[in-house]
Amino acid sequence: MEIFSIWSSALVIVLCSPLIITVCHSGNVLVYPIEGSHWINMNILIEALHARGHNVTIVRSDKSWYIKEKSPHYNSITVSVEETLDEKFIKELIMQGIDIQRGKISVINFFRMQIQLSGSFSKAHRMVSKMAESIFKDSMLTKGLQESQYDLVLTDPCWGGGTLLANYLKLPLVYNVRWLPVGEGHFAIAPSPLSYIPITGTGFSDKMTFTERLRNMLFYWLMLFQDKYLVRPHYQDVCHQYLGTGVDFYSLMQAADLWLMRVDFVFEFPRPTMPNVVYMGGFQCKPAKPLPQDLEDFVQSSGEHGVIIMSMGSFVGELPRDLAEEIAAAFAELPQKIIWRHTGERPETLGNNTLLVQWMPQNDLLGHPKTRAFVAHGGTNGVQEAIYHGMPVLGIPLFFDQYDNLLRLKQRGGAEILDIGTLNKEIFLQALQEVLHEPSYRMNMQRLSRLHLDQPMKPLDLAMFWIEFVMRHKGAAHLRTESYRMPWYAYHSLDVIMVLLAAVFVILLTAVAIIRFLCCRACKRKIKSD
Amino acid sequence: MEIFSIWSSALVIVLCSPLIITVCHSGNVLVYPIEGSHWINMNILIEALHARGHNVTIVRSDKSWYIKEKSPHYNSITVSVEETLDEKFIKELIMQGIDIQRGKISVINFFRMQIQLSGSFSKAHRMVSKMAESIFKDSMLTKGLQESQYDLVLTDPCWGGGTLLANYLKLPLVYNVRWLPVGEGHFAIAPSPLSYIPITGTGFSDKMTFTERLRNMLFYWLMLFQDKYLVRPHYQDVCHQYLGTGVDFYSLMQAADLWLMRVDFVFEFPRPTMPNVVYMGGFQCKPAKPLPQDLEDFVQSSGEHGVIIMSMGSFVGELPRDLAEEIAAAFAELPQKIIWRHTGERPETLGNNTLLVQWMPQNDLLGHPKTRAFVAHGGTNGVQEAIYHGMPVLGIPLFFDQYDNLLRLKQRGGAEILDIGTLNKEIFLQALQEVLHEPSYRMNMQRLSRLHLDQPMKPLDLAMFWIEFVMRHKGAAHLRTESYRMPWYAYHSLDVIMVLLAAVFVILLTAVAIIRFLCCRACKRKIKSD
Repeated sequence: MEIFSIWSSALVIVLCSPLIITVCHSGNVLVYPIEGSHWINMNILIEALHARGHNVTIVRSDKSWYIKEKSPHYNSITVSVEETLDEKFIKELIMQGIDIQRGKISVINFFRMQIQLSGSFSKAHRMVSKMAESIFKDSMLTKGLQESQYDLVLTDPCWGGGTLLANYLKLPLVYNVRWLPVGEGHFAIAPSPLSYIPITGTGFSDKMTFTERLRNMLFYWLMLFQDKYLVRPHYQDVCHQYLGTGVDFYSLMQAADLWLMRVDFVFEFPRPTMPNVVYMGGFQCKPAKPLPQDLEDFVQSSGEHGVIIMSMGSFVGELPRDLAEEIAAAFAELPQKIIWRHTGERPETLGNNTLLVQWMPQNDLLGHPKTRAFVAHGGTNGVQEAIYHGMPVLGIPLFFDQYDNLLRLKQRGGAEILDIGTLNKEIFLQALQEVLHEPSYRMNMQRLSRLHLDQPMKPLDLAMFWIEFVMRHKGAAHLRTESYRMPWYAYHSLDVIMVLLAAVFVILLTAVAIIRFLCCRACKRKIKSD
Repeated sequence: MEIFSIWSSALVIVLCSPLIITVCHSGNVLVYPIEGSHWINMNILIEALHARGHNVTIVRSDKSWYIKEKSPHYNSITVSVEETLDEKFIKELIMQGIDIQRGKISVINFFRMQIQLSGSFSKAHRMVSKMAESIFKDSMLTKGLQESQYDLVLTDPCWGGGTLLANYLKLPLVYNVRWLPVGEGHFAIAPSPLSYIPITGTGFSDKMTFTERLRNMLFYWLMLFQDKYLVRPHYQDVCHQYLGTGVDFYSLMQAADLWLMRVDFVFEFPRPTMPNVVYMGGFQCKPAKPLPQDLEDFVQSSGEHGVIIMSMGSFVGELPRDLAEEIAAAFAELPQKIIWRHTGERPETLGNNTLLVQWMPQNDLLGHPKTRAFVAHGGTNGVQEAIYHGMPVLGIPLFFDQYDNLLRLKQRGGAEILDIGTLNKEIFLQALQEVLHEPSYRMNMQRLSRLHLDQPMKPLDLAMFWIEFVMRHKGAAHLRTESYRMPWYAYHSLDVIMVLLAAVFVILLTAVAIIRFLCCRACKRKIKSD
């Protein structure tokens, strides 16, 4: 009995339920973004804020390579720095990751990877904290910032610069967040039992074996260690110098008014959350627009077989040569047409059915009725777009969270994952054929799409509502627990437990003493009477 | 610089942001409600479901005194039972509570109260589980229920009958919830550190002293004890008999698809929550309608002084005689007019300014511009209505959660609380004067009102959306962690911690053994060489 129409475009009605929204006059938003793919996300929020009549000012460095100085959507403040997270640094970091992944997976390799990455991350956090210091040292700049009467600071807490600036200016703080400086900040959001919440980077799901739970805990401690010795000290120094001695950087993060999380629970495993955490996963997704004519012609030429698209994300246009050859050779054997974002040398094994492009309208292609599968690296953006359009995925994760992102699709039956360390033509071809021809992949992804689209409000509108809420009420402190201000032993009730244990101990001791005393007396009496 | 219009009715725009909502065809909802004030809430949801075209069937007993058999909004199934939670039982329970509260507060009194209440509660849970049993025994009835192809069961989990029925019929389960069988079910919702989440009934806030934290933990254990020995066994028996041996009643509750909580975070202290918990606090509130002419005339006759309204909730029309006299005498000294819901004998001290009524349009009076204060018992409904209308409150809590509810207003500076044990004319008058004349009470309540009203969607619409979501997708399992299926020691990672401690112990022992061995060898050599 199908009594409900499950998400059908014919039945979508817009403006269905009365909304209570206060008109928000033009606000003044200070954005402290970070470079790279995270900027793509931030820019979507900036454009939406601009479209709603808010003034946006961004803070960038004079060495910024991704964030432009001029834009119709924002003004910019350029800070002069000695060094920055430039394209070269980021690409080197990525190539380090790929090289290590392609090596044999072993304990030694794991630690080599951790040490190498940790070094790079520590350097990055140092650069970021130096930029914040440059701002605080420049009294003209800080005076200007203070006088501009911003309503809030919007930042990505992946690096800590924005958090420092918001606190320096004593402004409400809104996070556009996927990561904290180290990992996902398990305990910054809500209590997160390690027994079913995997640390990102472990590649575990929410259902772990005993060994996986053990490794999850060890990984968590490693993360804490990295945080304590490699990340936090950089920010802590700036805290002490400019925000007051005794100010703890971690507490500044936990005091954020609002967390706009770039995931939702169609993607993420269910986990505890807090009232000031708003899940806006997929806020960047939109219905497909028509393709440019030449691309549309190429897509249509695929006939009934359809098209496969492949992209490894903003930073990996070019795979290692041998890998590219294997993949090209596999593609050449398929009846489908392929659109591949590949900026490196043209592989020799490339078939006539494969079109190499420098850039592709990924969202429009994912939403095209001819597209059959998406070969992807597993960045959060791409995975959310695949969910939005209900597209099966063949994942080739390269580094960081990409395996974990893809795992969330695989667990729901919407993706297969290949290991870049063992990848060759046969393995690639077989996995791709399965994703193409086994109908369950598409059915599962379309189920995820239906769940994702069935929300009371579009994620971007939700994000805008809550940003403007923080403007209207000058923060959102009533949604934030201040439990993080408690000493750790009190937060975990350790002092209470110790006192209770001590009380039990004293009671037991007293009982034992009384019993012994009575026994002795009884014995003595017996001896006397004997 | 006031650049934002803070919640002004002139600026409210309806239908502001595009909503994505799937049209939901007529659904078939089975409601298992409970008697008393909780039915008032459930009936609002039922009326809204009916208005949206859904068929609603309710399950009631042949001894129901509050839930009527016939209604234009629902069909009913009447189950024949031997005994039920009748009006007499509930009123006795309440009077027990008041009597104990008016006694001297002491440890003995506390335990007396606990034992008395526990006995009554255990009896109530037994009656509720017997009613479920009556249903399962009646094969004609269960066959009819199974054939009706309901889409979901909507129930209040305060008593466990609906939970049992939903699982018997294998239907998605939606909770309209303020309480679980014992307390607020701290750990059923999300991990809830006892260090900052007070157990309801303790009268603590989210900022506790060491002693309060200690008492909070002891109270939690007491609650667990009551649950284990007085509540759960009644349901557990029915579980084993009709749902399968090994089925745990608590797990059935934790497996609910959706929790519609009757609070929001303007009222409640911020706390961890879960993706399948929807906060719909204030869903019953609506703008005030005009008063009946005679009441409007009375209100207008108050002139500039305005009106005070007093109500002690659905079940307490009548206060103990001496208390009523004290309160009436205090009212008589005020220049305000008073509307008092009082069904008992007319107090001798009653002034001309006080109107006794059997029933009052509470919501319309709270939203009336002449109303100055609300004297209330602190039930969740009344407190949420006071927040909605921004009305200062003088609270006289009688039992259960009422002190805790009022505390949430007091902490935000919107209410004062009186102790019924020490209440007299002077104390009452002084507190009421303060609430009336100190402007901060009204300002704070109006701030809470602005925060409460500033939501992306009206709470009732949100509740409807999510109930229909469960219908459309046949549940909401993707929003629910299944961690509760883990053994308790695994959930808390105790097994992992034990193994790690053992490993550390073995390593230490080995190290000590090696050092001892080396030392011994060195000693022997020395002795030899000597």
